[in-house]
Amino acid sequence: MRIVITGGAGFIGKKLARALLQRGELATAAGKEPIDSLVLFDVVHAEGLPEDRRLQTITGDITDAAEVRRLIGDEVGGVFHLAAIVSADAEQNFDLGMAVNLGGTRNVLEACRALPRPVRLVFASSVAVYGGEVPDVLDDGTILTPQTSYGMQKAASELLLNDYGRKGFVDGRALRLPTIVVRPGKPNKAASTFASSIIREPLAGQEAVCPVERDAAMYILSPRRVVEALLHAFELPAEAFGMARMLTLPGITASIGEMVDALREVAGENVVRRIRWEPDPVIQKIVAGWPARFDARRARAMGFQADASFTEIVRAHIEDELGGVIR
Amino acid sequence: MRIVITGGAGFIGKKLARALLQRGELATAAGKEPIDSLVLFDVVHAEGLPEDRRLQTITGDITDAAEVRRLIGDEVGGVFHLAAIVSADAEQNFDLGMAVNLGGTRNVLEACRALPRPVRLVFASSVAVYGGEVPDVLDDGTILTPQTSYGMQKAASELLLNDYGRKGFVDGRALRLPTIVVRPGKPNKAASTFASSIIREPLAGQEAVCPVERDAAMYILSPRRVVEALLHAFELPAEAFGMARMLTLPGITASIGEMVDALREVAGENVVRRIRWEPDPVIQKIVAGWPARFDARRARAMGFQADASFTEIVRAHIEDELGGVIR
Repeated sequence: MRIVITGGAGFIGKKLARALLQRGELATAAGKEPIDSLVLFDVVHAEGLPEDRRLQTITGDITDAAEVRRLIGDEVGGVFHLAAIVSADAEQNFDLGMAVNLGGTRNVLEACRALPRPVRLVFASSVAVYGGEVPDVLDDGTILTPQTSYGMQKAASELLLNDYGRKGFVDGRALRLPTIVVRPGKPNKAASTFASSIIREPLAGQEAVCPVERDAAMYILSPRRVVEALLHAFELPAEAFGMARMLTLPGITASIGEMVDALREVAGENVVRRIRWEPDPVIQKIVAGWPARFDARRARAMGFQADASFTEIVRAHIEDELGGVIR
Repeated sequence: MRIVITGGAGFIGKKLARALLQRGELATAAGKEPIDSLVLFDVVHAEGLPEDRRLQTITGDITDAAEVRRLIGDEVGGVFHLAAIVSADAEQNFDLGMAVNLGGTRNVLEACRALPRPVRLVFASSVAVYGGEVPDVLDDGTILTPQTSYGMQKAASELLLNDYGRKGFVDGRALRLPTIVVRPGKPNKAASTFASSIIREPLAGQEAVCPVERDAAMYILSPRRVVEALLHAFELPAEAFGMARMLTLPGITASIGEMVDALREVAGENVVRRIRWEPDPVIQKIVAGWPARFDARRARAMGFQADASFTEIVRAHIEDELGGVIR
C-alpha cells in the first residue's frame, strides 16, 4: 500500500515517516497491510531521512487541485494530511491561510473522494479551533468559536472532513493537536514557540528568553505522543468515531513554572539558569487566551494517550534529539 | 444606500424586499440611511413585486466570483445573503451544494471585503447546523456536528463569516433559521415541506397529506417573524454579537398535533378534515432526528422574537396570503 504524508518535510511529518518505515505496515479496514511506498509531499524536500527504497519525496503546491489529485493517485491506500500554514502566518496572510489550510484540505478531500475506494485520512487539526467564550475545562462538546483565521480554517476543514466521511467519500479522522512541546529545530513564527525554546535551547547549552510568567498554563503533547496518536487514529475502526470524526487529543496541562521545574529536575539548575525571564505583555496576553484545560475522556476511551508528565517530555527530547547528552 | 438581497426571488427574499421598500430606510453604523436602491439577485427574476423605481432584479450565478463582485459594487451599503440550495437538493447534489452554499457565501464575503468600508451582511443560516448527539434542549453553546451536507455548508459558512467579521472585512451576522411555517406557494423538495402543506392546502380548500404522526415536534418560525429577524439583525450594533456572530433565532416548539389543533381553532373541523394522515416511516425518521427544542435566550436578550403561538402563525398566513379568506 502507498501512504502519502502532506507537510511531510515538517518535523512531525518526518517523525511520522520514520515510525511508518520502522513499522512497515498499517491496519486498514481490510486488515494489516504492508507499506510498499511512502510519499512525503511538501513545498520543500524532506531532508535528513534514512535511505529507504520505499521512501519518496515530492515537492509541490497543496493549493493546486490537479497536483494533489496526481499525488493521491489510485494506488494510494492512506493519507496523513499535515500540511498547513502556521497560526501567526495565517493571521497575517489571510488569503494564503485560506488557500493552504482550507483550500488545501478541500483538495486532499476531493482527491481522496476520486479514489476507487474510500481510504483512511488522518487530518492534523488543532485546539486553536477553540476560542472566545468557553468554559474553564473544555471537552469534545464545547462549541467552536475560533478567534484566529488558522483556527477557523481548521474548524471549517473538520466540518468538511466529517461530511465527506458521512457521505462515504473518504474515511476521515481529525485530531485536534495540543501545543507540541518540545519541538526540535529552530523557533518558528508561532506565539507558542517559546514553550519549546525554553527547554530546547538551555539543554543545548544556549540561552532562551521566556516571555511569559511562571503561572501561565498550556495544553501540551510531546512529538513522540503526537506520532503515536496519528498512527492510532489511522488504525482505529471508523465506528470508533461515531457521528463526529473530530476529537481533541489528550494532553497535559502544565504551567511554565512546572515546565521549568521539570527541566531543573532532569538537567539541573545550571541549565535552568540559561532561561532569561523577560515578560512580554503581548505574548502573555495571547497565551492567557488559549484554553489550557481539556477533558479528553472521549479520546482516552478510544485509546489515545497523553504524556505521563512534563519530566517525561523533557527526557524524551533528550533521548530523541540530543542522543542522550545535555550540554 | 444600495441594498442587495441574494436569493431575492425566493419567498423570504420577496417578503424582505417588500418590508424594506415600505420602511425606506435601515440603520447602519452611520445611523439611519435611506434605501435608494434595492437589488434582488437570483437565478430567476423575482416576480409579483410592486412597481417601485428603487427596485431592480438581476439574474445571475452566485457561484461566479466575478459576477458577485460586480453585484456587490462600491455603492452597496448592506447585503442580505439568502441564496442557497435547499437541504434535500444539497444532499443529492453534493458538488452543487458546495458551490452554492459554501462557495457562494465565500463569494459574497470576498465581494464585501473588497468594498471601501465594511458593510453589514445578514446571512440566513439554519438550525440544520445541529445534528448528531446533541442534548434535548439546544442553545448557542451546543456543538455543531451537522448530519447533512446542507447543515455542514451552513456551519462552515458561519465560521468564515465570523472570521471575516473578526478581521474587520465585513460586519457579518448569521441567523440560524428554524423551519419556516407556513411557507406560501407550492411544496418544495425539503423533507419539512409537509409542515406548511398541512396548513396551507386545507385553508385553500385543498387536500394535504401528513406523513408524520401527531406527536412529532418541530422548531418553527413564521415568515413574518423571519423577515422581522433579518431586519433586526441588520440594525443591531456589531457589539451586540460579541465574539460569536451566529445565533439561533427564537422559535416555538410545536407538535404536529398542536399545529392541527391550532388550525381547527382558527378554521374549524371542516378544514382540518382535508388532512389525510399517511405516516411515511422515512419522513417520520428524518423529522424525529431534527432538534425541536432550543433555548434561544441569547437571541431573545438581543431583541429577537418568536411567534406567540401556532394559532398566531395560522392567522398571519390567512391575513398575508389569503386576503383574510378561508375556503
